[in-house]
Amino acid sequence: VQSPALALMTFPAPADGPAHRLADATAPALRADDLAATRGDGIFESILMTGGRLHGLGAHLRRMQRSAAMSGLPEIDVDAWAAAAHAVAAEHPAVPELMVKLCYSRGIEGSGVPTGWLLAFPNGDVTRERTEGADVLLLERGVSSDLADRAPWLLLGAKTLSYAMNLAAQRHARAAGADDVLFTSTDGLVMEGPTSTLVATYGDEIVTPVPEIGILPGTTQERVFAWARGRGMRPAHVKLPVEQLASADTLWLVSSGRLCVPIRSLDGVARRFDAGMQADLLHHLTTVPDGE
Amino acid sequence: VQSPALALMTFPAPADGPAHRLADATAPALRADDLAATRGDGIFESILMTGGRLHGLGAHLRRMQRSAAMSGLPEIDVDAWAAAAHAVAAEHPAVPELMVKLCYSRGIEGSGVPTGWLLAFPNGDVTRERTEGADVLLLERGVSSDLADRAPWLLLGAKTLSYAMNLAAQRHARAAGADDVLFTSTDGLVMEGPTSTLVATYGDEIVTPVPEIGILPGTTQERVFAWARGRGMRPAHVKLPVEQLASADTLWLVSSGRLCVPIRSLDGVARRFDAGMQADLLHHLTTVPDGE
Repeated sequence: VQSPALALMTFPAPADGPAHRLADATAPALRADDLAATRGDGIFESILMTGGRLHGLGAHLRRMQRSAAMSGLPEIDVDAWAAAAHAVAAEHPAVPELMVKLCYSRGIEGSGVPTGWLLAFPNGDVTRERTEGADVLLLERGVSSDLADRAPWLLLGAKTLSYAMNLAAQRHARAAGADDVLFTSTDGLVMEGPTSTLVATYGDEIVTPVPEIGILPGTTQERVFAWARGRGMRPAHVKLPVEQLASADTLWLVSSGRLCVPIRSLDGVARRFDAGMQADLLHHLTTVPDGE
Repeated sequence: VQSPALALMTFPAPADGPAHRLADATAPALRADDLAATRGDGIFESILMTGGRLHGLGAHLRRMQRSAAMSGLPEIDVDAWAAAAHAVAAEHPAVPELMVKLCYSRGIEGSGVPTGWLLAFPNGDVTRERTEGADVLLLERGVSSDLADRAPWLLLGAKTLSYAMNLAAQRHARAAGADDVLFTSTDGLVMEGPTSTLVATYGDEIVTPVPEIGILPGTTQERVFAWARGRGMRPAHVKLPVEQLASADTLWLVSSGRLCVPIRSLDGVARRFDAGMQADLLHHLTTVPDGE
């Protein structure tokens, strides 16, 4: 098994030279009292590289800045992180699809110095979900869509290292024979997947839930909307009631790693699945530069 | 600054000899792709040692077993963890109050082998809160009290490493000039603090919210109830409406590290504060063996 490539950020950044250094990912790299490990107290981004391009790098770094601000973490130097992302990707042997994960924590408890690191590793085999689609369960997220604005301490919409619940929801779905999850709010709106954004089409309209309901703004979803505009479709951010999923033409879970996964069943009910559109979108997301 | 003492668990446990080994806490001990650090995907317990005793060790290990089961983690060997807790505590120079933290994650992604480690470090200086009390804000937790049972994937009531939200709520309170937080449910019940359990007295009744509403069962709260029984008080687990806080004689936030902190104001309204009872309870919690 190929081990990941690893880069560690240096804070404060040195006056000359890069703010990162490459390290051995098979050796311990984090202290046992780092708040990443003891409290999930930090943020992250996952970025796909194909054909030498880190897709949506700029959008990911903007979202990382936003998550840092929401979490009260020191501002990030986007140029330093971008350089580190390219460096750690270059360190990994070439693979068709490489994932680069950027992690940033509040650091060792009491130190006041954050910890930053980046991992590069091959994307998992997602061929089946991309070509055949995913069986998805609707699960309650347990919160209302107006909560994020009113209760910023809940960090709804920040991409934090505290993802235990997200992974538990996916395990719950798999134990029930499904592949993935779509969360709903207590007031009956569609939210997001544990590690993905929902996109739905209705004729030539393509929609995704507004981030203001307490979900992550999707970076891959932005790229899907750019593709849709090129096809003459009309993209929109909406508040999407769960019952309106039934009348959608197509439903996708989109994310950096799997890119676009058609929902082939929702709560056991088969869904339409446009194989031509899926192939076209997947081709766009893996090959078309996005200006970042 | 004294560094923590550190012990690392070995999985699977060796056939002979202890399941832990002591290590240098100032050196990196965790891989950068451990799910503790990248996903907050694990559980923990924090245990206070005074006078050579790990208070409530048995209750903490039982709760850790419960958190592991809720999180789908491999069952823990309570004897091995108890031995490691004593060993890491013995490794640390003597201090009046030592904290021992037990952490257990799903391990390196894809490995199927969990990671376990223990840290021993001096308790922070909590004298002011213990003697003068804390100013506490009521903050919405954003969930209803019947959610935990219905939606186990949310891990409500599991003590996971995903504590970013809990810490954010405490930062929110401090930015507002308060010391700590008491969460409320959307249906108007008192829940818990981000790192503590609420205890309230009404005459000779002493009450705490039932864990079934989606909160952690309190280990220190159990010890407070034992103390209360010894004083002829009547302990009960209740569903406590927020408005019933107003008529309580005394309110405490109880937790392993701070033990018992009287709430001296709630949302800016001064609260009664029984200094004699506080001194007696604190003496009990720091000195009386609890049979573990």
